[in-house]
Amino acid sequence: MNRTPRTGIVSQRIAESRVKVRYAETDQMSVAYYANYFVWFEVGRSQYCNDCGFSYRDMEHETGLFLIVAEASCRYKNPARYEDELVVRTRITELTRRTLRFSYEIERVDGAAVATGETLHVLINADGRASSFPDTYLSFLRG
Amino acid sequence: MNRTPRTGIVSQRIAESRVKVRYAETDQMSVAYYANYFVWFEVGRSQYCNDCGFSYRDMEHETGLFLIVAEASCRYKNPARYEDELVVRTRITELTRRTLRFSYEIERVDGAAVATGETLHVLINADGRASSFPDTYLSFLRG
Amino acid sequence: MNRTPRTGIVSQRIAESRVKVRYAETDQMSVAYYANYFVWFEVGRSQYCNDCGFSYRDMEHETGLFLIVAEASCRYKNPARYEDELVVRTRITELTRRTLRFSYEIERVDGAAVATGETLHVLINADGRASSFPDTYLSFLRG
Amino acid sequence: MNRTPRTGIVSQRIAESRVKVRYAETDQMSVAYYANYFVWFEVGRSQYCNDCGFSYRDMEHETGLFLIVAEASCRYKNPARYEDELVVRTRITELTRRTLRFSYEIERVDGAAVATGETLHVLINADGRASSFPDTYLSFLRG
Repeated sequence: MNRTPRTGIVSQRIAESRVKVRYAETDQMSVAYYANYFVWFEVGRSQYCNDCGFSYRDMEHETGLFLIVAEASCRYKNPARYEDELVVRTRITELTRRTLRFSYEIERVDGAAVATGETLHVLINADGRASSFPDTYLSFLRG
Repeated sequence: MNRTPRTGIVSQRIAESRVKVRYAETDQMSVAYYANYFVWFEVGRSQYCNDCGFSYRDMEHETGLFLIVAEASCRYKNPARYEDELVVRTRITELTRRTLRFSYEIERVDGAAVATGETLHVLINADGRASSFPDTYLSFLRG
Repeated sequence: MNRTPRTGIVSQRIAESRVKVRYAETDQMSVAYYANYFVWFEVGRSQYCNDCGFSYRDMEHETGLFLIVAEASCRYKNPARYEDELVVRTRITELTRRTLRFSYEIERVDGAAVATGETLHVLINADGRASSFPDTYLSFLRG
Repeated sequence: MNRTPRTGIVSQRIAESRVKVRYAETDQMSVAYYANYFVWFEVGRSQYCNDCGFSYRDMEHETGLFLIVAEASCRYKNPARYEDELVVRTRITELTRRTLRFSYEIERVDGAAVATGETLHVLINADGRASSFPDTYLSFLRG
C-alpha cells in the first residue's frame, strides 16, 4: 500500500493579478529592485486564495494558523520598469496537508516575460509547530 | 490652577544611529526614495529607547502597549545616495503620559544636512484604546 | 505692482486610485507600517499625472527634469490592515513654475478615514538645479 | 583541449556584515517579511565588494557596467524578529568574465541559523548588453 504523497490532484486554477510598478520599487538602475518580485508573488498568492473563495486574512483569524515561507526563488528575464503593468499568474504545483507550493509567472501586459518563481510554504500554529490544513481550507485550495 | 501640560522636563538626550543607504532604498532618480527616511527615523527611535535602557520590543511584550504613529513629517535638504553613511540624531521634544514626540536630524558623515523630521506617537493597548505610559517607562524616557 | 504668487488657478481635478494593503506592508502591530502611506501617496500622484494626460515616466524622459520631494507629511486616522481596499484621492493645492504641492486623502472603501497628507515638490534638472515646468506640462497640470 | 570554465580559482574570502531587523521589516506574523532577506543579501554583496577594495557604487560610475540579478533564492530556517542582530556571511562561489554567483548565510548573533541563499548576476552595459568584467575588477573579486 502506498502512501500517496504530495501530489494527488492539485487544482488547475491559475489566478491572475495585476500590479503596476511603483516609483518606490525602482532602484538606481532604473528597473524594479529584485526583492520586490517576491512582494508581487505575495499579491499573486493572495489573489489565488480569493479566487478559491477565501481570504488569507480570514484563514489566519479563524484557524490561528500561518503559512510561513520555507523557500523562495525567482528567475529574472526582462526588467520591469516604472509604470509597467504586469500580470502575475499564480498556480499551486504541490499540496499536502502541511505544505503548499506556489509557482508564478510574471509578464508585462505586452506579453514580454518578466520573471518566473516559486515559493514553498509550511503551515504552523501560533506556537510555531507544524500543523495540518483544516479540511475546509484543503477543499478550498483543491478548488 | 494650571493643568501643567505636555512639556515639563524632557530629556536632553540625543541618540545617534548610523545607517548606510542600501541599493534597495534608491530609486530611478539615483537617490534614496523619500519614504525610506521614515524607516531611518524608526531606526533612530529604536536607538533612543536602547540608550534609555530599554528595548521597544520588550516594552511591547511586557506592557501589551503599542506606540502608534499619529503624525509624521520630513523636510528633505540634500539627497542621500547609495552607500552614503548617514547619522540619525533623535531626541524627544514632548512627553506626556499618553503621547511622545520625537524629532530627527539626518546628516551625512561629512556633515551635509540631509533631512529633518518629526513623529508624534500615541500609546494604545491591544484593544486600540489610548493608554498611559507605566511609570517605569516614563522614567526611562525622562532618563 | 504685485508678484502674482503661487496660487492662481489650480485645477479642481481629484484623481482617484485604489490600493490593496499587501502583507509586505504590514508590521508586527498588524497594521500597515507608517512609511508605506507615502508610497500610496506616490501611487496617487502617478494617477494624477495620468488623469492629466501624461505619464510622469515620460515627463522624466522627454524633459530630463525630475520632481524631487522637498517636504512630506501625513496624519494617521484609522489603521489600514492587510487586504483593506483603500482609495487615495489626490489633488494639487499649489502650482508655480518650479514647485508643486499635492494633498492626499486616504479612505477605506467603507468610508473610514485612514489618513491625510501633503507633499511639496521642486523641479530640478539632471544637474540638480531648480528648473521651470515647460509650458506643455504646466497646461497638463492645470488641466 | 578543454575550455576551462567558470570555476578556476575563486576567492576564499567571506565578507561579514551586520544588520539589525527593523520594525519596517516585520510583518503581521511578527517576523521579518521574506522579501527583506534579499535586501540583506544585497547588504552582504556590498560589503563583499568593499572588502575586496572597491565600492560597487564606484564600479557603476567608472565602468558604466551594472550587475543585474538573473536568479535569486533563499531557504528560511528560523524566523528573524524585530531587533534581532543578524550576521550575513557572503562569499563568491562562481566567477566568470560575465557572471558572478554569491552565496549567503544569515545567522543570529547567538548562532541560530536564519537563512541561506544564492544570487546569480550578469554584467551588462548601459544598453543592456552582456559585458565582461574589466581586469581590474576581476582581480579585485579574485582578491
